[in-house]
Order: sequence, then structure tokens, then C-alpha cells
Amino acid sequence: MLKLKLPVIVVNFKTYIEATGLNALKLAKICDKISRETGVNIAVAPQTADIYRVSSEVDIPVLAQHVDPIKPGASTGGILMESVKEAGASGLLVNHSEKTLKLFEIDFLINYARKLSMVTLACSNNINVSGAIAALNPDMIAVEPPELIGSGISVSKAQPEIVKGTVDFIKRINSNVIPLCGAGISSSEDVKAAIKLGTMGVLLASGVVKAKDQEKIIRSLAEALME
Amino acid sequence: MLKLKLPVIVVNFKTYIEATGLNALKLAKICDKISRETGVNIAVAPQTADIYRVSSEVDIPVLAQHVDPIKPGASTGGILMESVKEAGASGLLVNHSEKTLKLFEIDFLINYARKLSMVTLACSNNINVSGAIAALNPDMIAVEPPELIGSGISVSKAQPEIVKGTVDFIKRINSNVIPLCGAGISSSEDVKAAIKLGTMGVLLASGVVKAKDQEKIIRSLAEALME
Amino acid sequence: MLKLKLPVIVVNFKTYIEATGLNALKLAKICDKISRETGVNIAVAPQTADIYRVSSEVDIPVLAQHVDPIKPGASTGGILMESVKEAGASGLLVNHSEKTLKLFEIDFLINYARKLSMVTLACSNNINVSGAIAALNPDMIAVEPPELIGSGISVSKAQPEIVKGTVDFIKRINSNVIPLCGAGISSSEDVKAAIKLGTMGVLLASGVVKAKDQEKIIRSLAEALME
Amino acid sequence: MLKLKLPVIVVNFKTYIEATGLNALKLAKICDKISRETGVNIAVAPQTADIYRVSSEVDIPVLAQHVDPIKPGASTGGILMESVKEAGASGLLVNHSEKTLKLFEIDFLINYARKLSMVTLACSNNINVSGAIAALNPDMIAVEPPELIGSGISVSKAQPEIVKGTVDFIKRINSNVIPLCGAGISSSEDVKAAIKLGTMGVLLASGVVKAKDQEKIIRSLAEALME
Repeated sequence: MLKLKLPVIVVNFKTYIEATGLNALKLAKICDKISRETGVNIAVAPQTADIYRVSSEVDIPVLAQHVDPIKPGASTGGILMESVKEAGASGLLVNHSEKTLKLFEIDFLINYARKLSMVTLACSNNINVSGAIAALNPDMIAVEPPELIGSGISVSKAQPEIVKGTVDFIKRINSNVIPLCGAGISSSEDVKAAIKLGTMGVLLASGVVKAKDQEKIIRSLAEALME
Repeated sequence: MLKLKLPVIVVNFKTYIEATGLNALKLAKICDKISRETGVNIAVAPQTADIYRVSSEVDIPVLAQHVDPIKPGASTGGILMESVKEAGASGLLVNHSEKTLKLFEIDFLINYARKLSMVTLACSNNINVSGAIAALNPDMIAVEPPELIGSGISVSKAQPEIVKGTVDFIKRINSNVIPLCGAGISSSEDVKAAIKLGTMGVLLASGVVKAKDQEKIIRSLAEALME
Repeated sequence: MLKLKLPVIVVNFKTYIEATGLNALKLAKICDKISRETGVNIAVAPQTADIYRVSSEVDIPVLAQHVDPIKPGASTGGILMESVKEAGASGLLVNHSEKTLKLFEIDFLINYARKLSMVTLACSNNINVSGAIAALNPDMIAVEPPELIGSGISVSKAQPEIVKGTVDFIKRINSNVIPLCGAGISSSEDVKAAIKLGTMGVLLASGVVKAKDQEKIIRSLAEALME
Repeated sequence: MLKLKLPVIVVNFKTYIEATGLNALKLAKICDKISRETGVNIAVAPQTADIYRVSSEVDIPVLAQHVDPIKPGASTGGILMESVKEAGASGLLVNHSEKTLKLFEIDFLINYARKLSMVTLACSNNINVSGAIAALNPDMIAVEPPELIGSGISVSKAQPEIVKGTVDFIKRINSNVIPLCGAGISSSEDVKAAIKLGTMGVLLASGVVKAKDQEKIIRSLAEALME
């Protein structure tokens, strides 16, 4: 039983100042409100220091942006999975292109997350890497060609063959894994294109976080999943 | 105006399960209580995910165990200094031996912290490295020979020449920097020895966190600074 | 056409002083001699600084122990694939457990090696990771549970199910990839067990490099592949 | 007794294809020839895989571009200081801005190099970092503001205050350390400016390696040191 309902819009707050501290709280509440109003599943991924504060005040799922591949012990400065779980996270991003990991660490985190009943959303940069991660059995994989991240050009429209290829390769390697679409998503059309290509949702960041009217863009993305 | 009063006992919670989440809160409250009762300065360094929760409920200074050398922006998974500051931290450890940093990163963090009015407590593994860090002008430097960390054998008693050498070398390079003593501190005698060697306090972790009676050991450490 | 003939014994020189500089040359010549005498395929993986010297004096294949995921340019201190190729290497180890890599780097190196007609021998630490790497299409994968490396306890005898599981999972994901067996191999029995489990050879280091009589042990390993 | 005579021009080959393999050999021979003809000290820093080949055919000092902070043992893929020494290097760059190191690693390498009688040329990115490295007692420090590297704009002309500040701060911290000037050096005027600011030479790369007429530019740089 996956703790995230599908299809889903995952909003990555990154380390944008517009989504730090009180701003993180404000943005998460907007996501929460629109999710409630539209019935569309939205999850948020705030910074580690903001997880407790955010999860205490919203009902939508909260994901950690990253967790270190460590067990409890003497790892000063490390981000322990148990700490983000106790702070209220129900899952985590793994191997985001801005926090790429060693192969064995991805494997460690996926297994450790399963033991702690945490959802894993792993990121990949191309079709082959998506297939490689599928062999490690995460819950979800979002394919994000790095050159499109933050570009405003969505992979679902600019490089649909990468999304389609990922969906197909993942299915062949491990049909339990759910494909998502990332990189450059910023409009309801991008979301619709992503769904049409066989993914179960989108992972996005700047398109929402840096928007002048965050609520408006989130609402339009959500509406793309209502039809 | 240093935001930490001296001399000080800094308790590093590391990623010990005994100091994660609710346990972090409990331990921080003990430190807070004993600081109030004894008048001795105690600071705590909980995990990133616990900073907000801890700082909301105690009056003693809260330090981050680590912050990434980044500015606000697209750094998914990074620990942004602004995020821990807004969560309530008034300073940070830099270059702990379990989270060692590149030289240029240490320089970046010390400067960035100063701009954000955050206190920096940098860690060094030997006399020369203490001198090198002093040139970068942090607020404090704790010398911790890695082989003694978590050993229960205090550097102030086992290798006093390293503490003394650090105190002297720091003074020669940059007399504004305050020397502390780390590694293996677990008793009031260790604290007294550290002060006698010219340091202005101690940085410790397992000696407190893993103690059966955390309150008892913190009280005895604090009493060493009352005399 | 794979540039390594199979089955093969790959001797990793690591950074052992017994296999550095002139010692590397001496050991490589022994491998060369025994390969010629027995007809068994042996390849050597000396340190980067020794590749030119070794490859100039032996006829057996020389592999780099590691190459950085870079293209020609301004990467001071990096190990460029073109540099080891021009020095005489015909392939490289990728992701050895002592030089683990990010997932996207493994993908980069395998693709880049194919363009340069270099053989890739990727290392994995367990069955799932073997499958993940197979999706990236290297020439060979050696499974090496890290706890057995240098132990003298061979994976082929102590944990045959890991070797068998790797062979099967690789075959399912990408039947072009050739499985090898690493970790703890030090006797002809270990080699025979590895072959019986479906691998096409072994990757070993200390069993040969640290042996009192290097020639004797290499000969006995080679004889295991003659029968 | 420093193994490099001063003042010196150090040519870093980086991983430029124009200075890889046979090209490295060719460039090193040009440096060797001009050094002999002009009497000016020139040292070359080729890639690890090219050190043996280059040092076998030239009389000028050969430096490694980087060495890993390891001792002989099981460090597959690592660059062992003993290996580059035996290949003919008489020293090494440490902490180049394209291969930045942890503070404790810089300390390790400087000490280890001294034990092996290898010269260390450490790189710094600003005045404070120069001072920090001086406390670690390398033989030489080259200050190179990263934004000027490869720019063709020399630090000695564009930011003389950084060079002067470095020279002064190094002198105050450790007067045994010899300051050099890097970043953007590409003409004899840049070299003269560097010497005038109190340095004992220059570290440069693209200005020579990417030049259409490598011999011509090296000769003009050398002549700047003859006057």
C-alpha cells in the first residue's frame, strides 16, 4: 500500500528562498488547500529544517528532498531517515539530479526506506538510468533530463521519447515501479502530456516555487489531473 | 558580540537515536534546565530536522551540526544556512570530523555565517589544522583528534600537548578565535583539564547522549565550570 | 568483439606497494608468462601511473583501475579515459567497491568507453545492484560483496547464492553482459566454483598481490581454467 | 633543499587533449628545450598516466597534478604518491581549484610529501585560504581566483591586490612558504607583473597548452624571467 495516491503532483521546494521557513509553510498550505478543493493528490518536498513545521500544519504528504545513506549513530551533520520520518515525512526523493548519489547508496536508501515504511521517489537522467533504478525496486521513478530542469521547457513536450522510453523500460524491468515525469513542467498542458505518455504524475519545482502567483499555477496543474 | 556566552559546554546530538526527534527534545530540555539551574552556558546541536522543534522549546543556544556551502537556489537536498537560521539555530558546527569539508567550503561557510550573524564553531583534527582554520577567522575552534572521538578517553587528559599547542598556535595566527576542546570528554575532570589548558569550553557527544543518566552527567560537567 | 577473451582471470593491483612501479612491472610479467604458458586469459589492472610502463612490456590486456567521468578539458588531476587508452589500457574497472561511483557516472563511463572501444568491467556489491548495472550495458559485471573483499573467504564458496542470483538477474535484464566473480578469490577451487556457478572468470587482488609466491598462486588459478 | 629552483614557470597540462599522451610528451620536450636554452626554470605537470613517459624523456622537474590522500594498500583506483614518485615525479600540485580537497587531506598530503621528499605546490582561491594553507607548511602556494582560471585575464594584472595580499599574509603566517601566481597568466607581461608583486613564479595552463604556437609562448614567458 503506497502512501502516495496516484496520479500525483510533487512540488520540490529545493533551497529557494521563496520556499524556505515561513515561505515553505505558506506554499505548503496553498498546496494543501488546492488538493482539498480539487481532490487532486499533491505532495510537497520542503527542506529538511522545514519538514516538521510543514507536516505539522498540512494534511498532504510531505517528502524529504534527500536523506543520507546512514543508520543511527555517530554521523554528525548527516540527515538520518528516522529523523525526517519522526518530523513527519512519509517518503523521500532519492538521487535528484542536484543531489546525485552513488549506485550503492541508492540501493541502500530504497531498502532502508521500505523497512521504515517510507515511500521512495527516485530520479533518473535518461532511459537507461531509469531502467537501472527500476532494478532496485523503488516505489516511483521520475525521469528528468538535467538540461531541462528549471528551463521552463517540459520533457513531456520537448523530449516525449525519453518519457515514453522510460515508461517502457521501467515496465520491462520491474512493472511494480510507477513512472513520473519531471524537468521543465510548468503548465497544465505539460501535465496532460506527461499523463498521456503513461506516467502517473509529475515532479516540479521552479515552475511553482518561482511563480508570481503560486496558487494560480498549482490550481491549473491540478485541474489538468481532474479531467 | 558573540552569540554564545563563554565558557560553554556544547552537546552534539549527532545522529544517535537517543537524540533524534522526541529524544532530541527531551535531551535539549535537560540541558536547558541545568543551564538555568547552574548558570553555566550550555548549547545543543541537534539534527537538522529537529532544530525547529528543539529551538521552539528551549532558551539555550541551538547550533546546526552542519550546513552546506550553498546560497539560496536550486540545490535540492542541500542544507541551506538560511533554513536552519529561520528554524531557530544561532550558529553551526563547521568541519566536524564526521562531516569534513573542503578548505574553500570552510572559508565560504565562515564568511557566509558572519553575514547572517551566525556563530561558527569549526573543528580541527590537529595543531596545524587548527592554525589553518584560525586564518579563516571563525568564532571558535574545537580541536578533536579523530581517534579519541567517542573513545571515552579525553584529549585534555590523554594528549594535553595537542590542546595546548592548538591554544598557542591559534593565538599566534588569530587571537580573536576562541579555542575549545573536544574528543573523548565525558567527566567533570576532563572539563576542568580543558579549561586549565586555556580553552573556553568543550564540545562533546556520546559522553552525554549515550549516558544512562543524561541529566546526571550534564550536571556534573556543568558543575566543573561553576568553580 | 570483446577485447578480452573469456574465461578470464583479472588481477587488480590496487595500490599495494607490492604492485607499484617496478613491482607492478614484475607482477605483470609473471601474469604474462603464465598466460602464455597455459593459454589461459589473464588481464592485469595496475595503477594509473604504471599503465604505460606495464603495457609496454606485456602482451596480455591491461585495464585501468578507474577512470574519471570526464571529457578532455580543464579537469586538473582527473584521470581521462583517453590518457589511459593512449598509455596502453584496453579497458577499465568501473565502480570498484573501493572507488564507488554515482549512478550517472557509471552510465557515462560505460557509454564513453564504448565510443573509445574500451572494455568495461563494472563491479557490484549485491544481486540488485548487478541487475541495475546490467541495464546500463557494460561488457562485464563482477559481483563482490564488500565484506568478503580481501578476506580470503571467496564469495563463490561462502555465498554461492549471490553469484548464482547475479548470473540469473543479469541474464534476465541484459543477456549480453558477461558475469564474473570477485571477492575473496584466492585458490583454484574458488575459481572452479565461480565457473560452475555460471560466471566467465574472476576478479581478484590480494590473493595474488600479497602472496609470498605470486607466480605459484597465479599458475594454480590459471590451471583451474585449463581443465 | 627545495627540489624546484626559483623563480619557476609551472605548466599544468590539465586533461587537455592537446597535452595528453604523445601530445604531452611533445609539449614537455618543448619546455625542456626552452629551459635549457634560456636557463629559466620550467616544470611540467602532465596527467598521471603520462608522468612516466614524460619524466623518462625530459630533464626538467615533473609534478603530479594530484595525488590521493592514501597510503599503500587496498585503494583501487586511487593515485598513490609512491606511484607517481616512482614514475618520475618530484612533486605535486595540491588542492588545484579543479581538484579541491578537504582541509585534512591537504594537511595529510603536505606531510606525506615531505616524508617522501616530494615538493608540494598548493593552490588557493583567495588571501585567507592562502594564509590557511601557509599554516600547513607546503613548499609553495599559488593563488588563483577561480573566476580568472582559463580566462586569459591574469590575476597579476586584474587583481594585483589579491596577489600582494597573499604574499603578505603568507609571509606573516609562515615565511618559509614561497608564493606563486596563477590564474589567467598568458603573456610575458603577466609574468613580470607577478614577479613584481613578490611571487617567485607562475602556474599556468591554457595560455600555453591551447596556444597555436606553444613554443613561442613558452619562450616569451621564459624571457620575462631572464631580465
